[in-house]
Amino acid sequence: LTAPDIPFSQKAQRTGEQPVSRLMAEALANPTLISLAAGFVDHASLPTEQAARALADLLAHPDSAKAALQYGTTRGYPPLREALLGRFECLEGAPAQTLALTVDNVVVTTGSQQGLYLLADVLLDPGDIVITSAPSYFVYTGALQSFGAEIRSVEMDQGGMRMDRLEGLLKSLQATGHLNRVKLIYLVSYYQNPTGLSLAPDRRQRLLELVRTYSQSHRIVIIEDAAYRELRYDGPAYPSVKSFDPKNQYVVHAMTFSKAFSPGMKIGAVFLPDDLLDAVLRQKGNHDFGSANLIQHALSRIMETGIYAEHVAQLRQRYKAKRDAMLAALADRMADLPLTWTAPAGGLYAWLTAPNALDTSRGKPLFQRCIDSGVLYVPGDYCFAPQADNPVPTNHMRLSFGAVGIPAIHEGVSRLAQAIRNQLDQGHASAIASTETS
Amino acid sequence: LTAPDIPFSQKAQRTGEQPVSRLMAEALANPTLISLAAGFVDHASLPTEQAARALADLLAHPDSAKAALQYGTTRGYPPLREALLGRFECLEGAPAQTLALTVDNVVVTTGSQQGLYLLADVLLDPGDIVITSAPSYFVYTGALQSFGAEIRSVEMDQGGMRMDRLEGLLKSLQATGHLNRVKLIYLVSYYQNPTGLSLAPDRRQRLLELVRTYSQSHRIVIIEDAAYRELRYDGPAYPSVKSFDPKNQYVVHAMTFSKAFSPGMKIGAVFLPDDLLDAVLRQKGNHDFGSANLIQHALSRIMETGIYAEHVAQLRQRYKAKRDAMLAALADRMADLPLTWTAPAGGLYAWLTAPNALDTSRGKPLFQRCIDSGVLYVPGDYCFAPQADNPVPTNHMRLSFGAVGIPAIHEGVSRLAQAIRNQLDQGHASAIASTETS
Repeated sequence: LTAPDIPFSQKAQRTGEQPVSRLMAEALANPTLISLAAGFVDHASLPTEQAARALADLLAHPDSAKAALQYGTTRGYPPLREALLGRFECLEGAPAQTLALTVDNVVVTTGSQQGLYLLADVLLDPGDIVITSAPSYFVYTGALQSFGAEIRSVEMDQGGMRMDRLEGLLKSLQATGHLNRVKLIYLVSYYQNPTGLSLAPDRRQRLLELVRTYSQSHRIVIIEDAAYRELRYDGPAYPSVKSFDPKNQYVVHAMTFSKAFSPGMKIGAVFLPDDLLDAVLRQKGNHDFGSANLIQHALSRIMETGIYAEHVAQLRQRYKAKRDAMLAALADRMADLPLTWTAPAGGLYAWLTAPNALDTSRGKPLFQRCIDSGVLYVPGDYCFAPQADNPVPTNHMRLSFGAVGIPAIHEGVSRLAQAIRNQLDQGHASAIASTETS
Repeated sequence: LTAPDIPFSQKAQRTGEQPVSRLMAEALANPTLISLAAGFVDHASLPTEQAARALADLLAHPDSAKAALQYGTTRGYPPLREALLGRFECLEGAPAQTLALTVDNVVVTTGSQQGLYLLADVLLDPGDIVITSAPSYFVYTGALQSFGAEIRSVEMDQGGMRMDRLEGLLKSLQATGHLNRVKLIYLVSYYQNPTGLSLAPDRRQRLLELVRTYSQSHRIVIIEDAAYRELRYDGPAYPSVKSFDPKNQYVVHAMTFSKAFSPGMKIGAVFLPDDLLDAVLRQKGNHDFGSANLIQHALSRIMETGIYAEHVAQLRQRYKAKRDAMLAALADRMADLPLTWTAPAGGLYAWLTAPNALDTSRGKPLFQRCIDSGVLYVPGDYCFAPQADNPVPTNHMRLSFGAVGIPAIHEGVSRLAQAIRNQLDQGHASAIASTETS
């Protein structure tokens, strides 16, 4: 009695497995592995007492408790949206009204991921083009591909996405008649996942100029993913890309509590142009008609009482020490190796670049050698969408200092360096051997 | 400096406003209104102490607190999925393994709505057919339409969706070559929204027979929305539709904590056939990679400690009294009116049927008369998807006894009865007038 096959939708057929789930399976199967791969946050500093206190206060009074346990709205709890806008003003150093933003423009989402997803859902049809940086945040790349979007990526340097290259791409799309397919430009503007690099301030302004210029048959929307903005350890605090959009027309600003407070609360938000609001709210109405109201009420207290700001300040110190530990370990253990790496001023990631000959991808010897040595990294090729004109680079690694402790950072980098050294030695030996035999 | 238009996706263009949001605006604008429309749950009995205790216990211990505040998995917290399966076994009176279900088949979702949505997302392409009952749960109808699905609906009677009519529909779709477009059959099997009626037990078995027979080129999936199953006040406890699918092939069983515990926690679950799991998990990975972990940990405790079962038992008593109050008020105030109504054995809704001439829809005089009298109902036409061969009936009303107190149920029904009486009198008067002048 077998049943006939289930007929999956085109979208389901386009939806690949997230490559990172295979890495998580590796980590689970090897509990002694030091994972420099996981995007998890620092476990020890999770705000247990702060969450306990806020929830206890909230639930101690029948009125506030019942309001939190009842249905909320699709847009989200108004005091939380107020607090989010207030925090944005504080980070920006400017009143929201100068950016034509009010509390109505803020929509609470199930993590920032849902916000990013909803934007793809309301904007993309198969064949549309989304521009990202190369490399880019791979979970969202997978989501974009599930909508049938074509990803065109723009090279990065130390200042983030290169605006000269973006201009070149837009020009060439215009010349070939494909500009009308460009719907979205996505970038992580602060301490990017996976490189740790931020978009330089002059490029933020230039990005808006380019989008205004090339929004011809229709508006091109920029998604500014500011997930790591709060995790600044040193260097200047840049104004957001959003701040260069004073009429609130082109830029969606996405934030999340997952990195700076608690991923288990799974709350984020998007700040939307007026004419995107209805579409996103209708779509979210169909998805879930509102994210968990109880947590929104708790987070609203956590922000209003200053607990959030205080926690973020402590977290910065903690992650700064981890970032320093990773950079020190890299400098110490990899000094003799032909690799370079970024020096992130914030966020959770460093990005390593190896010689082209050192293939870091999952099926290649280095990856297995690292597993055998007890260390896991994210192969850099996960972070690139294939491009017609360019092969995907296979000589990068993403290392995270978020979840691991300082001793494990040292030990993990040490294991990684040794595995790379052994791999390079063997590659060198076999290169010599193959020269001798040829 | 106006910007060009935003180019919305085909899907966004198909996504209508949920009609119920207009009703909510009415309710907000008229605070003295008694809303028999809202699908909200009883406010007074929300489990404030139970939630406070579970969260305090969870967050009191650093290990359990940190696990709850950290990222979870896309599939959901394993102990919660265990508890959900255990509760299902208890309601079913049969071990899950006799239905080929294990904890791996349970996926936790952001309310059951997200589970329903994900199934549409992985199964439907524009032009596909979904079969629902007429009437049906209107929020999901809107979501189905956003995927470009064609809704074909099947008449209900006191025993729920008529299986003879379903068979007739499948036969005629087969005869006209459209059977290959049928992807889903959706129904609320217990105390349906909007009628309060359940699918009769012999029809549950028959439904599976029909689906097996007509799954020819591909499998037709049944979604059993069991949102109200726990809210049983009297009458027999039926085995689920799922229980007639012993190899776990055809039926997805969806449940939620929103009705029987707390909608503000926004957690539900779907029990999936093996070969739907990957597709749903991949899609949910793109949506949010997991619902709020903190709440899943709390609910797991709430179930394991028996708090959930105890609360449900109390809730049944409370809603039973409200159901009784509504039926008594209807019998008392509408005895002289030419209306009939369902007598639900559970759930939150009663469904009224008026003479065809009494138009209950929002743009018609009765609705405004009710607003003016201070009572709000859900116009029945919201619950019907337009059919090629049949006009949408406009002589029904959905009344909810969920959120309102017993005095307000009496007063609300009294206001409604008076408004109907006045409307019928005026209709009668103008009918006589028009007869006299013609």
